[in-house]
Amino acid sequence: MATSEIRALFSVAARPEIVSLAGGMPHLAALPMDAVADVVGELVRQDGITALQYGSGQGHPVLREQICAVMSLEGISAHADEVVVTVGSQQALDLVTRVFIDPGDVVIAEAPSYVGALGTFSAYQADVVQVPMDNDGLIPDRLRAAIASIRASGRTAKFLYTVPNFHNPAGVSLIEGRRSQILEICHEAGLLVLEDNPYGLLGFDADPVPALRSKDAGNVVYLGSFSKTFAPGFRVGWALAPFDVREKLVLASEAAVLCPPSFSQLAVSRYLATQPWQQQIKVYQELYRERRDALLEALAECMPAGTSWTTPAGGFYVWMTLPPGLDAKAMLPRAITGRVAYVPGTAFYANGYGTSCLRLSYCYPTPDQLQEGVRRLAGVITAELELRHTFGAVAPTEARTGLGAWPASESAAGLITGDRDE
Amino acid sequence: MATSEIRALFSVAARPEIVSLAGGMPHLAALPMDAVADVVGELVRQDGITALQYGSGQGHPVLREQICAVMSLEGISAHADEVVVTVGSQQALDLVTRVFIDPGDVVIAEAPSYVGALGTFSAYQADVVQVPMDNDGLIPDRLRAAIASIRASGRTAKFLYTVPNFHNPAGVSLIEGRRSQILEICHEAGLLVLEDNPYGLLGFDADPVPALRSKDAGNVVYLGSFSKTFAPGFRVGWALAPFDVREKLVLASEAAVLCPPSFSQLAVSRYLATQPWQQQIKVYQELYRERRDALLEALAECMPAGTSWTTPAGGFYVWMTLPPGLDAKAMLPRAITGRVAYVPGTAFYANGYGTSCLRLSYCYPTPDQLQEGVRRLAGVITAELELRHTFGAVAPTEARTGLGAWPASESAAGLITGDRDE
Repeated sequence: MATSEIRALFSVAARPEIVSLAGGMPHLAALPMDAVADVVGELVRQDGITALQYGSGQGHPVLREQICAVMSLEGISAHADEVVVTVGSQQALDLVTRVFIDPGDVVIAEAPSYVGALGTFSAYQADVVQVPMDNDGLIPDRLRAAIASIRASGRTAKFLYTVPNFHNPAGVSLIEGRRSQILEICHEAGLLVLEDNPYGLLGFDADPVPALRSKDAGNVVYLGSFSKTFAPGFRVGWALAPFDVREKLVLASEAAVLCPPSFSQLAVSRYLATQPWQQQIKVYQELYRERRDALLEALAECMPAGTSWTTPAGGFYVWMTLPPGLDAKAMLPRAITGRVAYVPGTAFYANGYGTSCLRLSYCYPTPDQLQEGVRRLAGVITAELELRHTFGAVAPTEARTGLGAWPASESAAGLITGDRDE
Repeated sequence: MATSEIRALFSVAARPEIVSLAGGMPHLAALPMDAVADVVGELVRQDGITALQYGSGQGHPVLREQICAVMSLEGISAHADEVVVTVGSQQALDLVTRVFIDPGDVVIAEAPSYVGALGTFSAYQADVVQVPMDNDGLIPDRLRAAIASIRASGRTAKFLYTVPNFHNPAGVSLIEGRRSQILEICHEAGLLVLEDNPYGLLGFDADPVPALRSKDAGNVVYLGSFSKTFAPGFRVGWALAPFDVREKLVLASEAAVLCPPSFSQLAVSRYLATQPWQQQIKVYQELYRERRDALLEALAECMPAGTSWTTPAGGFYVWMTLPPGLDAKAMLPRAITGRVAYVPGTAFYANGYGTSCLRLSYCYPTPDQLQEGVRRLAGVITAELELRHTFGAVAPTEARTGLGAWPASESAAGLITGDRDE
C-alpha cells in the first residue's frame, strides 16, 4: 500500500544526517509562535467552555464564514451554509469518496496524482483512471478520450479528482484557457469535479487564479485547507459543496468523527480574526519561492544530462524524470545511503507506473540543505548512470514506456512525466 | 436517520428556556480554565514546531504511553505500540467498522445501544442485532441465543459492540460475574469484542472495575476517550487492539484523516503530564454524582405511577420507561412546548423499537435545573395520561410489545426497558 510505503520512507528520511526532499511538511519556523501561543491561551481563557466542548458536525458557523472570506480570494462566492469543516482536507476527500463511490466505480485523476487521494480511493475500492498532464496541466483532449473509453468499457466514472494549482506531485498548474474546457467536458459527461486546492494561495509570481468552483458552483466540490497557509497540526480543512452533497457529507462526517475538533476550529478562527494571516501567507510565499529557486538552481547546476524536471510557480513540489533506464524506486536505497531522500514516482500512480520519476519537495529544508541534497542526489544518479554504462543498458520497462498515463500505449512527448527517450 | 433526528432535536433543545435532559455534553465549567490555557499556551511556545505540524497516523508516541497509564487504572496491561490515537473514540468506532464490516454483515449490540455507534454501523450497511440487558447489564443467555439464531439464519456476526460501564443510554453496568461469561461466549463463537468505555472512570461509588480487555487481550478491541474525563473539544480518543488489527486501523486512519491533530494530542499529553488529572476526574465524579442524585430524587418525587427508570452508578444517563400506552417520540413536541427535552428511546434501536422509552442526561444541567426539568416532564407525562384516560386506552403498539429487544416475541420482565405492562 502506497501510504505505508511512504510512512516507512519518512521514518528513515527523518534521520538527521539525511537531507529529506521527501516530505510535504510546511516550514513552521516561519510562524510567529508567541502570537499563536497567545491566540490559543486566550481562546481557552475567554471561550474555553465552547472551545473544549463538542461542536456541530458541519463545523463552527463563524469559522465557516471566515472560510468563505478566504475562498473569495480565489473568486469563489459561497455561503457559510455550503461549507463543511473537516479534519484536514484529507477527511473531506474521504467523505466525498464515501458518499459517491461504490466498489468498482471509476475515479478519474491526473497522472501523477496526490498519493493520499489514491490511498483513499483505493480504500473504497475505486478503480482509478489517470489522465496525462503537460506543463499546462490536465490535457482536455485526453480527459475527453478517457471518459469515452471508460464509457465504452461499460463502467461509471463518478468524479474527476484534480489539483489545478501547483500540483502535488507534478508542480504544474492548469492554465486559464483549459479551465472552462475541463468544466464543460465534465458537465457534459455528468461527471462531478472534485477540486483539491491546498496550495492555491501559495503562488510565487501572481495573484491567485480563479478556482474552478468560481466558474461552476453546481458541479464542483471544492476542498480547502489551512494546513499550508497556517499550520497542519490543527487538522482544519473543508469542503464547499452544492446543498444536496453538503448534507450527505455532514451525515457521513457525523458517523465518522461526530464533529471536527472545536478547539482546532476556534483556534484557526481566532487566528484569522486577530492575526495578519494574509501577511503570513506572503511570508510563506517568499520563503517557498526562495527555496524553489535554490532547488531549481542546484538542479540546473548538478543534474546529469538526460534528467528533466518541472518548474513550479507555487506550492511545494518539483517532479523529476530520470535519465533513460533508471528506476527511482530501485535507486532509493542508494540515495538513502547517499544521505538524500525523495518519494519515488510510483507512489503517485494507482497502477505501478511512474518508475522513472520522483518527487522533490522544497518546502521544508533550508536553501543550503536543498543545495546539498541536490548535490548528493546528482551524485547518486551519476553513479547509477556509470553503473548502467559499465554493465550495459537495461531495456526500458513496460511501466516506463507506458508513462503511467492513459492510454498506456501512446507516445508521451511533452507530457509532464518528461521522459525524453520516447 | 437517527443522527440527523438527534441533531434537529439538539438545536431546539439549545434554546435557553428549555431544560435539556437530551445532550451528553460534559460540564466543562468544572475545568480549571486558567491552567488549561497555560497548558496550551506553553505547548505552542515550547513545542509549537511539533504541535502545529503533521504527526504520525498512529498518534504521538508519548501520548500513547500516557494512554497506557490511564488504562492501567482499569487493570489493562498494554504497550504503547498497541494503541491507535483517533479523532474521538467515534473515529475508532468508524475505523473498526470500516475494517471488519462488509455490507450485510451482522453486528451484535446491546438493546438499547449508543446512537452514534448505530449511525456508524448503518453507514457501513451492517445488520444490527440487539440483545437485551437487565439491571446487571447484557444477559449472557440472550447473547448465546442471538449468536445461535444469527448462525441459523446463515449470516456472519463480526463483532459484539458493548458499553460495559455506565451504559449509554441504559445507565446500567455489566456485573463482574457476567464478564468472563460474555468473553467466553464471544471467544467460542469467534466473535471479536468491541469494548467501548468512555465512562469507566466516572463511577460514583467504587473504584473502576477491570475492563473486559484486561481479561482477554487477544479478542477485545478497547475504545477509550478523553472526552468525558477531560474535554471533548480536542477530539482525542483511542483504540487498543491486537497487533494485526492495529495495523489495519492505522492504514484506515491514514486514508481517512492522514493523522489525528498533533495539537490536540500534545495538549492532552501536556495536561496529563503537568496537571492533577486524576483529581479532576474526582471533581467530575462528585459533580455528576450530585446531579444523578438530584435527578433520581426528583424522579421519585414527581413521576406518576407506571413510570420506571434505571439507577446508574456512574456516567451520564438514566433510561426511563413511560407508563403503558405512552409513546416517547410522539410526546416529544409536547415536552418541548412544556420546556423540557430528552432523547426518545427509538434513537437507540436500529429497528424502531424503544417507543415507550427515553434517555435522560444529568451531566450538563445544574441540580436545580434537573429538578425543574423533571417537574416539567412529569407534568407532560401526567397530561398525556389524562388525555389517554379521557379518550380511552390506546392499544400498545407492536414496537412497544416487542421492546426493541431480541427476540421480539418474548416477554420482557426484568429487562432494563422496564415495561411493566407485559
